[in-house]
Amino acid sequence: MKELKGACIIGQSGGPTSVINASALGVIQTALKHDCITQVLAAEHGIRGVLDDRLFDFGQEDPAEVELLRNTPSSAIGSIRYKLKPSEEDETDYIRILEVFKKHNVRYFFYNGGNDSMDTCNKISKYMQKVGYECRVMGIPKTIDNDLVVTDHCPGYPSAAKYIGTSVAEIVRDTKVYDKGPIVLLEIMGRHAGWLAAAASLARVSGEGPALIYLPEVPFDMDKFLKDVTDLWNRQKYVVAAFSEGIRDKDGKFISEYGSDLAQHTDAFGHSQLGGLASTLSQFCNNYNGIKTRPIEYSLLQRCAAHCASQTDIDEAYLAGKTAVEAAVSGTTDRMVSLKCTRDGGYKCEMELIGLTEVANAEKTIPRDWINEDGNNVGDKYIEYALPLIQGTPDIPTENGMPRYPHLKYVLAK
Amino acid sequence: MKELKGACIIGQSGGPTSVINASALGVIQTALKHDCITQVLAAEHGIRGVLDDRLFDFGQEDPAEVELLRNTPSSAIGSIRYKLKPSEEDETDYIRILEVFKKHNVRYFFYNGGNDSMDTCNKISKYMQKVGYECRVMGIPKTIDNDLVVTDHCPGYPSAAKYIGTSVAEIVRDTKVYDKGPIVLLEIMGRHAGWLAAAASLARVSGEGPALIYLPEVPFDMDKFLKDVTDLWNRQKYVVAAFSEGIRDKDGKFISEYGSDLAQHTDAFGHSQLGGLASTLSQFCNNYNGIKTRPIEYSLLQRCAAHCASQTDIDEAYLAGKTAVEAAVSGTTDRMVSLKCTRDGGYKCEMELIGLTEVANAEKTIPRDWINEDGNNVGDKYIEYALPLIQGTPDIPTENGMPRYPHLKYVLAK
Repeated sequence: MKELKGACIIGQSGGPTSVINASALGVIQTALKHDCITQVLAAEHGIRGVLDDRLFDFGQEDPAEVELLRNTPSSAIGSIRYKLKPSEEDETDYIRILEVFKKHNVRYFFYNGGNDSMDTCNKISKYMQKVGYECRVMGIPKTIDNDLVVTDHCPGYPSAAKYIGTSVAEIVRDTKVYDKGPIVLLEIMGRHAGWLAAAASLARVSGEGPALIYLPEVPFDMDKFLKDVTDLWNRQKYVVAAFSEGIRDKDGKFISEYGSDLAQHTDAFGHSQLGGLASTLSQFCNNYNGIKTRPIEYSLLQRCAAHCASQTDIDEAYLAGKTAVEAAVSGTTDRMVSLKCTRDGGYKCEMELIGLTEVANAEKTIPRDWINEDGNNVGDKYIEYALPLIQGTPDIPTENGMPRYPHLKYVLAK
Repeated sequence: MKELKGACIIGQSGGPTSVINASALGVIQTALKHDCITQVLAAEHGIRGVLDDRLFDFGQEDPAEVELLRNTPSSAIGSIRYKLKPSEEDETDYIRILEVFKKHNVRYFFYNGGNDSMDTCNKISKYMQKVGYECRVMGIPKTIDNDLVVTDHCPGYPSAAKYIGTSVAEIVRDTKVYDKGPIVLLEIMGRHAGWLAAAASLARVSGEGPALIYLPEVPFDMDKFLKDVTDLWNRQKYVVAAFSEGIRDKDGKFISEYGSDLAQHTDAFGHSQLGGLASTLSQFCNNYNGIKTRPIEYSLLQRCAAHCASQTDIDEAYLAGKTAVEAAVSGTTDRMVSLKCTRDGGYKCEMELIGLTEVANAEKTIPRDWINEDGNNVGDKYIEYALPLIQGTPDIPTENGMPRYPHLKYVLAK
């Protein structure tokens, strides 16, 4: 394979995570070491920054500041939800991307995101091949939703899971302090897959998890839930229950839509925007049993809680970025870095490369046999899966007792 | 002062915190060292455990497990919200308390709570004096609300403030990632005092705090807020705003009650139960400007987030418990431990003893000149006050990546 000389671009796409910047750091630090990579550029707001020619030159940043990205949550160069149309339908964006790539002699494109982002990667790569512009395109997985197929898990998920498990352990302890406690209803992200809500069960490792956990993988039965939660409260005088935002009834209707007047929107990818599940459930509970409820929506708190990140997650996220660069420099293109893990005889995680098309537009859900028969909690198989991923407490740089985030110059490449 | 020999009781009252168990540990470990204290008892659910004669003998616990209380959030022996009637009105509870005290020869009573709890302490002490039963009564301050008078701050507040500041710093970063972000509305606890919502401003130390912070100390003007938040979003395309749950308009009406159909309850102390402020504000915002909002209620998450505790807080909470025991053993009674702090020339905190009646049923609010003129943010005086309190990252005992909480036997005293 002949050496390919040119600039690289790193872009961040989709919802941010606690470790998406650790992957960017893996790309940046590795790329800066390779002579064939002439410039390390970061696209502001993902593909939007390419279209707008807003590319930051990370060679001009202070390396000590850049290093702080390792523990800095959320997308430091900005993210985007933007779906490229197929080039056969509309070539406009592709022509512009090619123009910007040529202007900066971009020969390496690294894109960090979920399955929609891998679709973007794939489309760009295919277009560049079609027009004969040599550019190596690599996807780096990221999503707190953990719903990418093939890969054992997605960087970002372990830290979100650790925060959810830890804070649920705290909430369970808080809920038990009075002789009569409330029914706590925890709304956790997860549209079609229950990975994040399942993480509430990690609280069991600290003593006690939610007695009830509902995932989108199993149809939700409101009548049965109301009976179960009331029976449980009558027995123990408090209940903590966790729910994926995307739980649906047997007819496929979102439970969050049971509250008739809740508005429904769709986002740029055509997905329904969910919300208000916890308060909807709270109203149903109150009408049924009159017991005090505490609806709590984790919302943005669960996405970037880097103060409770997993060191394993940080290390793997970094390694995924590093692997993408090394593979591309060695001649690989059109691949996503995937995590191959074994748990028997101790946890091991290796980076492997898979085809972009293997992950684009597919979703991985929780196996049915990881969920109990009643469909209202997860079993030990999930805990065995997740526990190795949340190991390690990072030593987070602080200043004045608060997290020290990098001061970046964001110098635009000319 | 003659030596007083007998058992001691530690009780926890009111809302739990991240460090209330650190204070209990300070009491327990110190009391176990004093020969005049014959038994160290912990009352289940505070004064309720005394009335029900449910007292756990901490002399029978494994000291290594008890030590874990230092980093264990929420009330490990259970809490209560129970207001004793004046003994002149109804002596029933007092007669029962005296009976249980006599049964176990209780001569030391340590009560850890907020201002309602100091009132309980005071009433019990006065009654015991009236009937001639010698018992030394000491209050230990605790409340995330930070609204006790005299004391510089309350143990529990610094850790809640640190978690709020840290997670708001993360939320601000999350909100900025897209080219157009939402209006994030953060509902933070605080009925009459804005201490917890003010802590959102600590995010500034990490780079950027909420552009708008509203406290109950200043009347809230809905029209001005809607104009301000819309102008701000138009300028920067995202807004993070923080609110005390108890903000009221110039007529004293709670903003959370603006949503006409929101139910209103009162708790056992006769305070209004608030809730739903963030979603009420979200509806007003949406109607006014149509911009996407993210209402987030911190709810229970802010109260026991020991995973983000302040080591300073833990140390002070422990010392407050230790000081209460040492003072009582030396003959002091009817006092609350109060924190006297200086910040000039470096932060110093000393424990002093004040009269219980000095703090009972009074509330400390944020000085008006710590809030900006517009009444929609806090200034540097608050940061200077709070910053020393959030210093230090505890080394939290973990097992399998999750917090390791104590396994206690809870052996009832006979």
